Formats: sequence, structure tokens, C-alpha cells
Amino acid sequence: MAEDVVVAGVGMHPFGRHSGRSLKDLARVAGLRALLDAGIGPQGVQMVYSSNAMAGMLQGQEMVRGQTVLREIGIEGVPVVNVENACAGGSTAFAQAVMAIRSGAADVVLAIGFEKMFVADRSRTLDALESAADLDVVAGLGIQFTAVYGMRLRARLADGSIARQDLADVAVKSHANGVRNPYAQHRVQVTAAQVLESRAIADPLTLLMCSSICDGAAAVVLARGGALPQPGRPTVRVLASASTSGFTLDPAGGPSGATLCAQRAYEQAGAGPGDVDVAEVHDAMAPAELLYAEQLGFCPPGDGARFFRSGATALDGRLPINPSGGLASRGHPVGATGLAQLAELTWQLRGEAGERQVHRPRIALAQNSGGWLEGESAAVNVHLLERTQRWT
Amino acid sequence: MAEDVVVAGVGMHPFGRHSGRSLKDLARVAGLRALLDAGIGPQGVQMVYSSNAMAGMLQGQEMVRGQTVLREIGIEGVPVVNVENACAGGSTAFAQAVMAIRSGAADVVLAIGFEKMFVADRSRTLDALESAADLDVVAGLGIQFTAVYGMRLRARLADGSIARQDLADVAVKSHANGVRNPYAQHRVQVTAAQVLESRAIADPLTLLMCSSICDGAAAVVLARGGALPQPGRPTVRVLASASTSGFTLDPAGGPSGATLCAQRAYEQAGAGPGDVDVAEVHDAMAPAELLYAEQLGFCPPGDGARFFRSGATALDGRLPINPSGGLASRGHPVGATGLAQLAELTWQLRGEAGERQVHRPRIALAQNSGGWLEGESAAVNVHLLERTQRWT
Repeated sequence: MAEDVVVAGVGMHPFGRHSGRSLKDLARVAGLRALLDAGIGPQGVQMVYSSNAMAGMLQGQEMVRGQTVLREIGIEGVPVVNVENACAGGSTAFAQAVMAIRSGAADVVLAIGFEKMFVADRSRTLDALESAADLDVVAGLGIQFTAVYGMRLRARLADGSIARQDLADVAVKSHANGVRNPYAQHRVQVTAAQVLESRAIADPLTLLMCSSICDGAAAVVLARGGALPQPGRPTVRVLASASTSGFTLDPAGGPSGATLCAQRAYEQAGAGPGDVDVAEVHDAMAPAELLYAEQLGFCPPGDGARFFRSGATALDGRLPINPSGGLASRGHPVGATGLAQLAELTWQLRGEAGERQVHRPRIALAQNSGGWLEGESAAVNVHLLERTQRWT
Repeated sequence: MAEDVVVAGVGMHPFGRHSGRSLKDLARVAGLRALLDAGIGPQGVQMVYSSNAMAGMLQGQEMVRGQTVLREIGIEGVPVVNVENACAGGSTAFAQAVMAIRSGAADVVLAIGFEKMFVADRSRTLDALESAADLDVVAGLGIQFTAVYGMRLRARLADGSIARQDLADVAVKSHANGVRNPYAQHRVQVTAAQVLESRAIADPLTLLMCSSICDGAAAVVLARGGALPQPGRPTVRVLASASTSGFTLDPAGGPSGATLCAQRAYEQAGAGPGDVDVAEVHDAMAPAELLYAEQLGFCPPGDGARFFRSGATALDGRLPINPSGGLASRGHPVGATGLAQLAELTWQLRGEAGERQVHRPRIALAQNSGGWLEGESAAVNVHLLERTQRWT
């Protein structure tokens, strides 16, 4: 499958609070930027996958969310599929676009994700977030994601494999990267002391460790290899596209969804975690990065904090994680996040990431997880991207 | 692509008003029946596409709707993609499943659609239905689908190509078929006089011409040809899978989405409308069948009523349309409808349609349309299915 599917263009609307802009405004900017980056006009798009999680509950727009924004971009008369997978919706749109191309249905496909979480009544946003789990199970329990992450981290604090200081330090790293990212929501450098002293969310998690309510959009143009030649720019191809849902009905549990999904991706690519040069992982809370480093095989189980302390995951480390700032700092507008990860990695592989550019990456990994059932992710997607040209 | 993708199993929960059953109950029944029909257990499913249109607005369950029902069926640890395309969501799930198999991502895929429209407050269901259009354009205008269909039909009454009696007669046919369908919502034979005298909805449409609020579910198992051999039963394969969105930004308009989509399907199949032996079309209002017969090429433009009057579209006609009773009689639980059409056609091609069986069909067409923008469908899918064995 050499170069069977390439990332031909990426674009984002900056993440943050955009009270004066509609959901369509956000999507239009991201979509047009991705087309411009791909060197095509709206007529060049043959199919569209759209990702949004909350417009039904927050803006009252269900059913045809993608179509309503495509008119804004000038795309018409092509198949549009609206997908949803909680926080993993963006990468689900990307994965479906890869499949559409591989199936022969289209040569050039736009994947676009957009979310407007800031609404007049914040309690509605929290209600919408709760619908990422099975409401028959969790309704009224108050078991939000933060509580689940908090419980897992408390177990790790108890066994001594992670220290409270690590939780703060990884949030400091996240924000340090975010400061360098013009698309990030939170561009303020923080200290470990500030992180630890910020408001408790779900012990041991504090406010400055967590992603927050956010507006934003991201878009990616995928193309069959050769369909959109891009002279003068390195080619980024899709090396692997793996998806799963993490939950199991086995009471004994099993490997995490992220672990299973990464294994599938590595198999597809004929590569391993040691080949990854840069990664964007789903740190809805910055300390999740420590757990995902283990689950993705970047370090042995239990060694996430040690791996982080070694400096390996810093911008100038051996395997920089979340150079964008990650969800906690870049922001997490639910339906857009997965595509923002892939946009960031495309910029990194091309060498276009500016002040947050990592050193000459060749292979990049994106892990995007969404929803939860039975204590595991309802949807996980892991993608591996490759820069096909050598760095010179 | 001989037998590249086959319909290996289908199942439905009867459409109707099911106040004692949850959304999950409906989906579980349809899903388990489709698995049983395919001769596989939950472990045999490698990927799932889920279609639902209103649970976010009516049941408060967004983001992971498919995952919450899969646990009910016993499916775990496989990729799940939640798709939405208004009234065309079911066939969108089907089309994506075809793509997933053709792309090499999976060999056996479940497409499942489910909807529960009866809720305590009917105005909420109507609000949810309105979100099938762009709310920024239509909010508060009261321009529901019925009004759009009504306006189109008034133009045809005015030019004399359709008579008011035709509108009634096609509804009578729809109900006559529905009476024979154990899965249908409205199983009551009506007369033309009753149809014309029923309550006006949007002139010339009356209550008995229109689909109504409905609960239900439908599911289809698709498989790579040969992956699930089904000895002793005719094979139904996917001959064509075409999708588009109908709206154009050209003020002069263009061919309808259904026309464009059918043309693509015929091209894929190397067939034409004259090869179709039975069809399920998207008659959200029974008279729409007259218009779609033209748009799908079954008769010349303007001749829909004449074609109907000839008896060609009756159960024993040359090209029976909506043997199931169609949306107006079988019912239209939005996210499930497209899959119910494909289940019906599979039964017809296998010769398992009981009292509503048409005579030895070989090629079947399903047309499912959803949403509207700029006066046209936001999403259209046309599928052609073929019985590969000769009738004996």
C-alpha cells in the first residue's frame, strides 16, 4: 500500500472561546484552510466526512450537521457522512476517509471536525458531555471522565509508580508546548506549584491539568497517492489506520483499547513503538499522557512517569509527546480534536511546526479515544503517518 | 466485483408504537435477528455502523449511541462508527459497511439502525425532525417536509400530470401492501375516499398519505463474498452502492439528488432502470412514489402517475414499488428506514416475503433520501441488490 493514501492538506480554526463566531464560521475557516493547503478548490472534493459531537444538544442542529457547513465552503453534490464517536469523532472521520479511498469510492476526501461548547448555559455543555457514556448506566451518578481518570491515578499514586509531582510536571510541559502553538486555547506558561495549587477537580486532578470547554475546528484533505501531487513539499502518507472499541464484557477485563488499537496499527505498518518519532495522545487530563505512553508501548507498563522524567517526551526528547500542547493545553473541542492531532503531526512531519518543531521526525502516531463503557473507551483510533522523503 | 459484498443476514423489530420498549430493546431484537439470519454469533461481527437520528434530542443519548446497544447484543471490542444522515442514515450505514469491506478493513460488518420517536411530548419529536434541515435557514418558518412535498405536488396537479385521485390511489396501494407485512406500522386497508377525507396535512397531502411518528429498528449483516457461505439459500449481492447530496449552489438548480444517485448506481452496475424488478423508494408521503418513479428512470419525466395507473408498480406488476408498504405504511423510524428497505428487498430476492412476495425478482433497487438544503435532499443513497442464483 505504498503511498496509497496521503494527507494532502490540513487546516485549523484556532481553539479557544469564540463567542462571536458560529459553528459554521469555525468549520468554514478550518475547511477552507485545508483546501488551500491541499491546493484544491471546493470542486476538488469528492466526498466528505463530518465530525461533531454536541450540536444536537447545544445548537439544536442534528442529522445534517456536515451538510450545513459545506455550503459555507462551497462544496456541493458530493456524498456527506456525519459521524460521531464522542471525543474520538475526529479520527473516526479520518479513518472513514482512508477507507473510502481504499475502497475505490473516492480519490479526494475531506474530513472535517467542529465543535462549539461555549453556550450561554454551561450546565447544558456538561449534560452533553455526560452523553459520551451510556446514560442508562451513569445518569445522575456524577461519574464524569475526570472522576474516572482521578481514580486510576490515585491507584498509581498509591503503588508509587507515579508521584504527585509528575502530575504537575506533565501539565507544565503541556502548557509550555501550548505557548508555542498559535492554535492552542491555553497559551500561558504555568509552574508546577501553580498546577498543584489550582482548584481540585477530582483528586489528584487539578484545574490546570484538565482540558476545558472549548470552541474550534480542524480539517484534513486525504487523497489517493498521486491524485494531488504536491511538488516542493514532503509527502505525508497514512502508514496505518486502526480502530476499535475498548470495552469488554469479560468481567476480568483485558488490555486497554489504546493498547489493542496500537498493536493493530503497528502490525499494519510493520513497525513498532520504537519507530515512532513524535506522538499526539489523548490527554483529556495532562497526566493521561503518562498512562498512554505505557499503553502505546513507548515504555514498559508502570514506567510512564520514569519515561517522562527522563525527558524523552519533551520537545527536544527522543519521542516528543503532544508538541501541540495536547488536549489539556491546545484545547479539546470534542468533534475536532482527533483531526487537530493529525493536522499537528502533518505539520511536524513536513517541518512546518515553527517554534514547537521537533527534530526531523519520520513516523508519527496519533491516538484519539472517546466515550466510555464498562470502564473503557467506547471508541479508539490510532493512526501512523510517515514522511516519505528524507530530511535534508 | 462479482459477489464482492453480499447481504448475509437481515432482521427487523416490527415498526410501530412500542411504549414499553426502550431504544436498546428495539435495536437488540433487530440486531440479534440479523445475526441469526446470517448464521453467526456476536463474535462473528468485525465492525459496526450504527444509524440513529434523534436519540440526542429525544433520549439525551449522543456520541456513543451504537456502542450502548452493542452491549445488548453481546458485541465487544470491534470498531463502531455512529453515522447520521437524517432519513437517509440507515442506507448511509449500509453504504459505509460496503466500503469497509471493499477497503479490506473487515470481512463481516453489521449495519444497524434504530429510532424511538414516540416520547411523552410530541412537540419534541417535531423539533427533532426540523433539525433535518439547516436551522439557520428554516427555524421558525414551519416549512416541514410535508409542506415541501405539498408544494411540489400542487405544481403537478396544476399542470395536469397528476390527479388528486392518483394521490389517494397510491396511498391505498401502500396500505394494501402494508397489510401483508408483519413488520409494518399501519396494517389497515383504506379506501381512496377515506384517504381524501382524512385530515389535511399540507394540501394536497392528507393524513393517510403521510408517514407518521414511529418506533423501530432494522439491521443488516454484510460480508465479503465467500466469508459466510450460506448453503441452501440464494445469495444476495450488492450490485451498486451510490451516494450523493442533492443540493446545488447553482441558482438554476439541476437534476434531483435521486436522479443523480440512481445514474451513478446504474453505471456501477452496468445496468439500467429497465433491469430493476422490484424497488423500495423513499415515500415519506405515499405520492412521492409517483415522483421517484420518474427520477429513478422507471418511466419518462412527467409520466409517474400514468406509470402507476398502468398497474406496473402493484405487487403483481412489472416493477412493484414498495411491496413492504413503504414509509407511509410500513412506518418511518428515521434512522432505521434505509435498512428496512434493504431488509425487505433481501427477503424479496430470496423469495421469503410471504404474502407480499413479488414474482421472481432478480435485481432490486433501494432509494433512501434524507434532510434538505436548498430545496433538495441533503443525502441520497441508491443501492442495487442482485440475486445471483436463478429462480427454479
